[in-house]
This record gives sequence, C-alpha cells and structure tokens, in this order.
Amino acid sequence: MRRIRLTMAYDGTNYSGWQIQPNAPTIEGQLDRAIFELTGERVHVIGASRTDAGVHAMGNIAVFDTESRIPADRFSQALNGHLPEDVTVTMSSEVAPDFHPRHCDTIKTYEYRILNSRRMIPQFGRYSWQIPRKLDIQAMREAAAYLVGEHDFKSFCCVRTDVESTVRQVTGIEVFEEKHGLIDDGLFKSADYKRAREADPDYFDPTMLVIRVSGTGFLYNMVRIITGTLVAVGRHSIKPSDVKTMLEACDRTSAKETAPAQGLTLMNIAYLDELDDKDSDDT
Amino acid sequence: MRRIRLTMAYDGTNYSGWQIQPNAPTIEGQLDRAIFELTGERVHVIGASRTDAGVHAMGNIAVFDTESRIPADRFSQALNGHLPEDVTVTMSSEVAPDFHPRHCDTIKTYEYRILNSRRMIPQFGRYSWQIPRKLDIQAMREAAAYLVGEHDFKSFCCVRTDVESTVRQVTGIEVFEEKHGLIDDGLFKSADYKRAREADPDYFDPTMLVIRVSGTGFLYNMVRIITGTLVAVGRHSIKPSDVKTMLEACDRTSAKETAPAQGLTLMNIAYLDELDDKDSDDT
Repeated sequence: MRRIRLTMAYDGTNYSGWQIQPNAPTIEGQLDRAIFELTGERVHVIGASRTDAGVHAMGNIAVFDTESRIPADRFSQALNGHLPEDVTVTMSSEVAPDFHPRHCDTIKTYEYRILNSRRMIPQFGRYSWQIPRKLDIQAMREAAAYLVGEHDFKSFCCVRTDVESTVRQVTGIEVFEEKHGLIDDGLFKSADYKRAREADPDYFDPTMLVIRVSGTGFLYNMVRIITGTLVAVGRHSIKPSDVKTMLEACDRTSAKETAPAQGLTLMNIAYLDELDDKDSDDT
Repeated sequence: MRRIRLTMAYDGTNYSGWQIQPNAPTIEGQLDRAIFELTGERVHVIGASRTDAGVHAMGNIAVFDTESRIPADRFSQALNGHLPEDVTVTMSSEVAPDFHPRHCDTIKTYEYRILNSRRMIPQFGRYSWQIPRKLDIQAMREAAAYLVGEHDFKSFCCVRTDVESTVRQVTGIEVFEEKHGLIDDGLFKSADYKRAREADPDYFDPTMLVIRVSGTGFLYNMVRIITGTLVAVGRHSIKPSDVKTMLEACDRTSAKETAPAQGLTLMNIAYLDELDDKDSDDT
C-alpha cells in the first residue's frame, strides 16, 4: 500500500466546492471517480483545503492510498485521462504512509482578483470580482498591515465555524496591480474612443488588482472576509485603522462583507518541512 | 431616426457565433433582443465582424437605427441591463445615417492566445489553445514576416469562401509572450516541486504566447489558418520559408490546420478616417 499525493488545479465555477456531497458536482467527487476508473479502488481522497463552491485552485493537495502498481509520478497523467477539462492533476508523488495534508505545518497562499473597472469585461467574469469604483490601493495596503501577524481572527470568519481556537498567523498580505493583455487599451486609437476616454477616464482604465494572502492557516471564509474588508477600506467606507478595531472586537459582525467566491484562487500550499531553504530564493 | 454604433465585448464560449440563426444562441440574437426590450423596436443590428462560434471580442462594432430618444452615449449602460454577463456594450455613440461598419476602411486587430505548456491549466481552457510542445518563437516570427503585406491569401481561407477577390493586406503580425499572474510559478518553493522541476523543466514552465494579427480585411478563418500555420512552423513541422510557397500556391490544402476558435479574440476595429493622427502615439 502506498500513499500518493496529488497537486490539483481546477476552475471551480461549475463545482459545489471540494467536499463530496450527494447530488452535486464536487472536485473530490471527480477525483474519487477518476481514481476508481483508473485503479478499480474505491477511495475517498483527503484534501488539504476544502475550497468552497466557485473557488479555484492552482495548487491544492490531495492524498489517497492505493495497491495499484502505477508509478507514483505517472498518476497525474493517468488521472487526467479520467478527469474533465476543468479539473487537472499537476503533479503526483509518493509520500510517507502517515502523511496527512491537513496535519502538517504549511503556508497557504491565496490570491483574490478584483477587476477594478466600471467597464465590464466578460472574459474576466469567472475569475474576478468586478468593482466599478476605483479603489484606493494605498489605503488597502495600510489596512492589510494590521492583519499581518498572529491574531485572533474571530471577526474574520464565518459564524458557522466551530473551531476551538480562532487564532491564526497571517504571514503576509500584498495588494498589487497585475498586467493583463486583454485589458491593455493601447490598441484603441480612434478619435471616437479618445473623446470618450477624455470625457470619462475611469471607464477606460480597467485594472486587475490582486490581494495575495499567505498564512499558516485560515478560518472558514477568512480570505474572502479579509478581501471584503480591504475593499471597504479601498472604497473609503471605513478607515485603515478601523481594521485594528475590528480585529480587537472578535465579532464577525464587526468586519465587512464576504467577497464573492469567483475571485479566489488557492495558489499554493507549502509544507514547511519540505522547504528546501538552501537554494530558496526568498530566504 | 438616428444610427447608433455600439462597441461590443463578449466571451464567445456559449454562442454559435455572431450571426443570428434559428434555435442557436448568437451575439446578434442577444443584441437584437436587448434592443427590442429597451426600445420596443424590432431591429437587426449590422455587425462589423461576424465572428465564428466560440470566438471572443473586446471591440467588435455593431450599428442599428432607432427612433428612441435615449441619448446615444447612454445606450451602452441601458443595453447592458438587458444583456447576459458574457455579452456587454463597452461604448455607444451616434454615427452618420449612412455609416456601414463593413463598408469603411478599417484596420482590424485579432489576438490569438496559445498556452504553450505540457501542464494543463483549467483556468485558461476557454481562452487559449493549449499546445504541449515548446514552440520556436523565432521561427514563427520569421514565417510571419512572409505574410505581412498585400498578398493573395487564397491558401489561407476556408474553401467555402466565395468572395470575388482573395487579396488582402496584412499590416502586421507580432508573436510575443504575455505575462500572467496565474502562470508565474514563483510561489512554488517546495523541495518536491524543485525536484520535479529539475527532472522535467518544460512541464513547469508554461508560457502564454500571443499572435497579434492586424490587417485591412480578413478572409473566412484567415487568422485561425495563419495561426495553425505559424504553429506548424513553431513545431518545426515546416520551415519558415514554406509559408512563402504556401502563399504562392493559392490553394487552401497547402496551408496548415485551422487553429481552434477559443484562442481567438477580435481586439479592435479602427476606422481609418476616424484615426486622430495628431496625438496617436504610434505614428
């Protein structure tokens, strides 16, 4: 019996999240079915992060045990033959039989994308939250600084969480603009367009904002509530320092709205005892 | 009676192309319906480019005539209230009553996106052609140079085209890599990942290639056949100079496969007599 670890990328749009449910398409359901089709074994994979409905991933982690003799690194390609186009295994390897993807020290990194634009761009609808009014990025960065570090994030988790402790460590939050070819307006050169642009510059100046949040663990909906709160700061509905007060309140009603699922991507889960510090370029 | 011009952006995935058809969702069908809902007038918009099923647009153009008293620049917002999320009007203005979007001198710009990666990335499936083997960009650029200028593009159009002349002017073809946050692997730092990457660097080095083609007019499927042919060059199935021979053959069977629809976006249509050369930054 071997334990196989899979790195998963998926477009969560058409799924009711990671966790298997009766009568709803889920990532775990797809994966369990694909493993059964490939090996004949009925398994339930263990996921590192049980992402919500509509949330995407570039690097979620799942493990399962198998008697199959398929080489560990071949599982990715073999399973992709049994998975739909919106769910894919990026990498597969054998891990220790007691490796549990949730019972390890990790740093998870999420990215939340905001299309900050009054102009709608249909191609980004599945992967971002569109916010028409220009957000104040500097204020968002100032607010984010209050959240970095070890804090009780009770105000920043969904009320239905019943975990014992709501203390978590956020190791970093970056707020930055991302370039994207489709929203580079350099191609538009007509006088018509220029007149419209001069009359209403904001409309023709879309930007993609990314909020990248890393931490050793996250409570239910925490990244989306952090995002909703930073957006409230960016809109000047609240001040950056209000975020400090919210943290101290330890009450979900003090923080702001939960940002919608489609903007969120689980980018990476780093297992700390596997980090190769010797040649890591960020140390 | 006024003639209104609309600039349209859409995600073509769920549509059978621009042109209205019975029993199939089309962009024109959505627009005609939205105009009827807004003004009560039954119109058929005239499109500048009748994009194919699955092709996207950032700047297609449509016109229609109306007796409505809605201010010309308000049509965009008003129509968006009647359009689905994947079809949107970016800009609206009044044009001369005899303005016909296809009977003007224009430069159209298309971009074709290729995810050049053996690793599948589900988030790009709707908007790119995934090609596993690394393409030789320099060879593609060399081949593209043969296509720029005025040529008979009979070899590069779909055989069912019955236009009188197949001579067209391609004003430029650029082949370049586009950065994208989701495919920046800087976040992956585990020893596991590094080992896998060292063993198989190509797998972990996805790039987004863009082929940007501009011209005064295009034959049916021409950009997708140009793309398919440049990809054949990038794969070293043919030499760059073979493209010259293909052009001279004036025979569709001499050029290569038609690239799939989902990678193509009509970026912009510039009406030459509206170009404001005085402050254009590319002149």
